[in-house]
Amino acid sequence: MKKLLCGIIAGVCAVSAFSVAAENEIKLPTPNLKNSVTLKTALEKRKTSRTFSNKALSELDLSNLLWAAYGQNRPNGKRTVPVARGIYAIEMYVALSDGVYKHELGDNVLKKVTAQDMRAESDSRKMGAKAPVVLVMVADKDAFDGKGSHYIAMEAGAIMQNIYLYCAGYNLNTVVCGSFKPQVWAKALKLPANKYVILTQVVGCPR
Amino acid sequence: MKKLLCGIIAGVCAVSAFSVAAENEIKLPTPNLKNSVTLKTALEKRKTSRTFSNKALSELDLSNLLWAAYGQNRPNGKRTVPVARGIYAIEMYVALSDGVYKHELGDNVLKKVTAQDMRAESDSRKMGAKAPVVLVMVADKDAFDGKGSHYIAMEAGAIMQNIYLYCAGYNLNTVVCGSFKPQVWAKALKLPANKYVILTQVVGCPR
Repeated sequence: MKKLLCGIIAGVCAVSAFSVAAENEIKLPTPNLKNSVTLKTALEKRKTSRTFSNKALSELDLSNLLWAAYGQNRPNGKRTVPVARGIYAIEMYVALSDGVYKHELGDNVLKKVTAQDMRAESDSRKMGAKAPVVLVMVADKDAFDGKGSHYIAMEAGAIMQNIYLYCAGYNLNTVVCGSFKPQVWAKALKLPANKYVILTQVVGCPR
Repeated sequence: MKKLLCGIIAGVCAVSAFSVAAENEIKLPTPNLKNSVTLKTALEKRKTSRTFSNKALSELDLSNLLWAAYGQNRPNGKRTVPVARGIYAIEMYVALSDGVYKHELGDNVLKKVTAQDMRAESDSRKMGAKAPVVLVMVADKDAFDGKGSHYIAMEAGAIMQNIYLYCAGYNLNTVVCGSFKPQVWAKALKLPANKYVILTQVVGCPR
């Protein structure tokens, strides 16, 4: 009887743990970009937009956006952006209304790191608050033995450009935000000392 | 008679001056990208390639490539890449077999700044020598009052990414070269003290 009770309790705990984990995770669908937009059109339409509707992005939108930004485009794991010496120094986070999630590339899962709505921190004009999504690039200052800040900035610039082109091509608005408080983000995201937010980029539907 | 002679001499000099100027300039055709490649395909095919055929790029290829990289995509003069505070801190140069040319964006003209073949300087492995074109990004360290090196690196990264996507989309090979001697380039390009080469990127046809 004691054994059975333990078994039942263990089972309940396991289910409960799984359920909590699931609450803090979003399993994204496999990226599946529509094949309708030309590179020429995306380059022609590339622009900064600061107005957004309240419409949320779907999980497929997010998955496509993260793939275009920094995803793997080959079986060898290489990505949509080039990096110096094969070192990927950036991790993508996604700030939504219910918190900030880290994008786990391998499983294509978003894992919640804070329940805080950080979107208004994306720049000093608080415009991020008006868009459903802020993409957050977190860099590792120890990459390149601490001597590669310009390589990391170029990597962030390439990711930023992919996001701009994706938005231009798939009818989303975006603005990159270079003006934010890195220490506020670092605290909210519980980043270790070697990690820092290098760029935030607001994404949403046009108004 | 003296007047006539002077007139003839002046005429000859003018023609000669024009001819010298023309020799040192390449008027590029208006960019005209074929509309056949999707953004999705370009992102899927984005990769680094280090092998090139000897085939030269046409003037239209160069014009299209420069437009995609850093060209104006709107009547207000804004470009295919975003920049911090509206400050464009980079100028594009093109290294060909007969010298290095500065790209004058407004007239879409390449103006020769040196007759030296600098392509082998694009990186330490001299691989640039094997490709017909090296695109050279020259940055202004005084932009952002000297405090914007990370913004400039992000801008270079965005240009680099456009070049990669253009090459992926239009069947060209490319590799960015982060390893070169900036002072060798600065001397050859006769750059003032505030300008420096931030990236070189080799472009050519597949072998």
